[in-house]
Order: sequence, then structure tokens, then C-alpha cells
Amino acid sequence: MKPIPLCWRIVLVRPRNPLNIGAAARALANFGLRELVVVKPYGPVWQETRSAVGAEEILKSARAVEKLEEAIGDANWVVGTTTGSRRTLDRHLIPLTDFARWLRRRKARGRAALLFGSEKTGLSNEHLSYCHGLVRIPTAVHCPSMNLGQAVALFCYELARSGALSVPLPAPKVDRSQPANAQSLEHVLERAARVLGHAGYFKPKTRASQLIKLRRFLLDLGLSSNDARVLGGVLAQVEWKIESAGG
Amino acid sequence: MKPIPLCWRIVLVRPRNPLNIGAAARALANFGLRELVVVKPYGPVWQETRSAVGAEEILKSARAVEKLEEAIGDANWVVGTTTGSRRTLDRHLIPLTDFARWLRRRKARGRAALLFGSEKTGLSNEHLSYCHGLVRIPTAVHCPSMNLGQAVALFCYELARSGALSVPLPAPKVDRSQPANAQSLEHVLERAARVLGHAGYFKPKTRASQLIKLRRFLLDLGLSSNDARVLGGVLAQVEWKIESAGG
Repeated sequence: MKPIPLCWRIVLVRPRNPLNIGAAARALANFGLRELVVVKPYGPVWQETRSAVGAEEILKSARAVEKLEEAIGDANWVVGTTTGSRRTLDRHLIPLTDFARWLRRRKARGRAALLFGSEKTGLSNEHLSYCHGLVRIPTAVHCPSMNLGQAVALFCYELARSGALSVPLPAPKVDRSQPANAQSLEHVLERAARVLGHAGYFKPKTRASQLIKLRRFLLDLGLSSNDARVLGGVLAQVEWKIESAGG
Repeated sequence: MKPIPLCWRIVLVRPRNPLNIGAAARALANFGLRELVVVKPYGPVWQETRSAVGAEEILKSARAVEKLEEAIGDANWVVGTTTGSRRTLDRHLIPLTDFARWLRRRKARGRAALLFGSEKTGLSNEHLSYCHGLVRIPTAVHCPSMNLGQAVALFCYELARSGALSVPLPAPKVDRSQPANAQSLEHVLERAARVLGHAGYFKPKTRASQLIKLRRFLLDLGLSSNDARVLGGVLAQVEWKIESAGG
């Protein structure tokens, strides 16, 4: 089985229980992953997360950031995790057991971020709009929701089992044929939003959900790094035209 | 993939942390397992284990027993879990990723018990002497030991993923060609120990470790239920002869 050359980062979005952060860190260590980022942890929660057997290094180097974008900016692949039970999702859910095949079919390589939502609410629709794919653990219908630390452990195990873990990437080499990373897509989206704003596309009440749809639309285009640069340039030109005409 | 007709019981031996018992119960519920037995839990630990999201039924029907034999007596297959790191084991460790194949090769069916040791010490050599096989989660060398709740979750996931979970068994039908269950093997061992005692086989200081070796020897014979009955009968006859001669 050929390994999938991905370097994984585990991202916990707003976890509420310090024990779960510790348990997640330990699972990373158990399976040879290294990078943990926590988005907007409650202050005391983050303070209390001091140690986890064998995972001291991982916790010491773990980052806490304020926004999801900071956690995934440089990732070519962003994958969300969900039980898929609480809301009707309009997207295909990849069973965890099928995840490696999904990655292989896409010839995925580079940096990848795996997002886990908070214990209570999971990932929001906005978080999900950043994701190239959504993975679901095939749990029992009457008890679908897993404990956060256990879910992280299952993903780490499955990534290791299926050959989807690579050694840490060396120098951040840009591969322009790979999916544009989250940061450059977000730049394109911001530019597009300004242009569309000038064009009167947004309604004040639905602006947020319109942006989520646009982000999904952009993701689904499957832009490469190069595509994102080209599209960004086009939009910059349009924006300049509109602004200079308006001024 | 043909399912393996085994009905699993998860057995936690001397767990120390009530959170781990709850987490284990939740993992069972997540993957459709039902039966949890706890051997010799510390009193307060068992009292504190009141709830786990979605696993209320499992905790309510969970049994606490004093001895391992009570937890595995009716099991045709007993499997131990170990990191394999703390002592030099003289036995082959089955990687978790290979466990289903191992069960299939043995055409395993009937009742199976999966043993997890305490958080601090794992399973003792005596516990391991009851096991037909020892399974190891393929963890990283520098951080091999997993959190108990996470380890249980991985096993439940892997059993489900690999088709090694059957529906609960109906009436306890005896299949004499399957491995003798732990209880009948223990009866044979007790009888053999009495006969060997008469014969002066045991040395006072090493009796315990000699018994562990004998148990392993008996297990490795792979006796069926029928074999165990026959051997038990033979030993009873010898025992009777010795005792009547001595009296």
C-alpha cells in the first residue's frame, strides 16, 4: 500500500474540556502525529491543559489561535469531522473506513488539517464551508456522537493504519498543481466579496450565509494554487476598475 | 467480507478512573456492543461511574465481579490487550490491524471476552495466562501506552470495521467443537493441579508461577469443549485412584 504523502495537523475548534485536549494530544503521540492547534479555547480550559502522558512535547508546541483561518491557512486539504446526525447536510459524508481511498483518488499531498468541533455542538456550518471533505465515523444509529478524545484517537489510528501519514514535510515547498491552500482561497473570496458588494449582490440579512455558500462554491471549483493566483489577479483588475469608475 | 459470528464482552480489569469506565461504555454504545464487565473496581470508582452520554443502558446492565474467572467463565475466546512494551513477553502479539484475520483463520465463533488491564499496570502475567491471543495496538515506539477509554474505542471500531461483531447470541447453545470455555478449562486445571499436588510436582515457592505455566500449556492445547470433558474425566479417575490408594 503506497503511503499518502500528507502532513497532518489536528485542529480542535472551541473544545470545552481540558481532559479532551490532553487525550487528543496523547492520541497524536500514540500514532506519530505531531501538530495540534486549538481554536478559541476557553481561557481556563487552555490553562488547565498542562499534561498528558507521553504527549508533553505535543502540548508544549501546540498553538492556540483566535480564528479558524489562522489554524488552516497553509493547508492544501481541510477535512471536517461530523456525526452527520444533527442537521441535514447537503454534502456527501465520507465514512472513516473509506477516507484513505478518498484521499488516494484525489492524489492528495501536502499539508492537511483535520477539524474537530466542540463537544456540545460539533462544527458549525461556517466551519464546514472551509472543508474539502467531511468524514463521519460509522457509529451506531442510536448513539452516533463520540467523545472528542476517542474520536481523535480513531482518526489518528485510521490515518496510521491506512498509510495516510507521512513524515513531517521538509521545507514548505509550493506545489502549484495542488489545491490552493485555505489562506489563498480566502483572499480570493475576500476579493470576490468586495467586487460583489460593489455590484449590490449581498442582502444585509443574508450576507453571512451568502458568504458561506460562496466559500463552498469556490472550494468545489477545486482551484489549484496557480488557479487561485490567476483568479485573484482577475478579480483585482475588476475591483480596480469598479473603484476607479466609482471614484 | 463474511462476518465473524462472535458475541463480544468487554472486560476492564481493576480500572482506577471512573471517567475511563464511562468512556469505555460510551465506545461500546457507539459501535453497537453491549456487554461490559468490570473486575474488582475500587469501590468509590464504581460508585462514581454513573453516566456516560448515550451509554446509560450499558452502564446499568454492566456487572462488577470480584474475580477474572467470573467475567470470562462462559467465553470460548479470551483475548488480552497489551502495549507489549513493559515486559518481555514470550508470546506472539497480534497487531490490532490483523486481529480479524487471526479470528477468521481460527474460524472463531461463540462468546468472546476482550480484556483490558488497569491504567497503571495493564494486565498481569496471570491475567494473560487466560488468553488465547494477545493483541497490540500498533502505537508509536516512543509513546506506546494508550489511554484506557481510547484503547477500548479503537478495539470497538476495529471489530465493527472488520466485520467481527455479530448480533447478540440467542440461547447459549453449546458447540462442542469450539474451544472449551474458560470455566471448564479452569476445572480441568484445578483437577490437574490436585493430581500433580499428590505427585509432589509443586514447590511451595514457585507454585503460583507453575500454575500460570500449566494454564498456558492447557490453553495452547486448543482443547474443544468435548476434549475438556474427556480430559476432566481422565483426571478425575486418576485423582480417585490416588486418593483411595493414599487413604
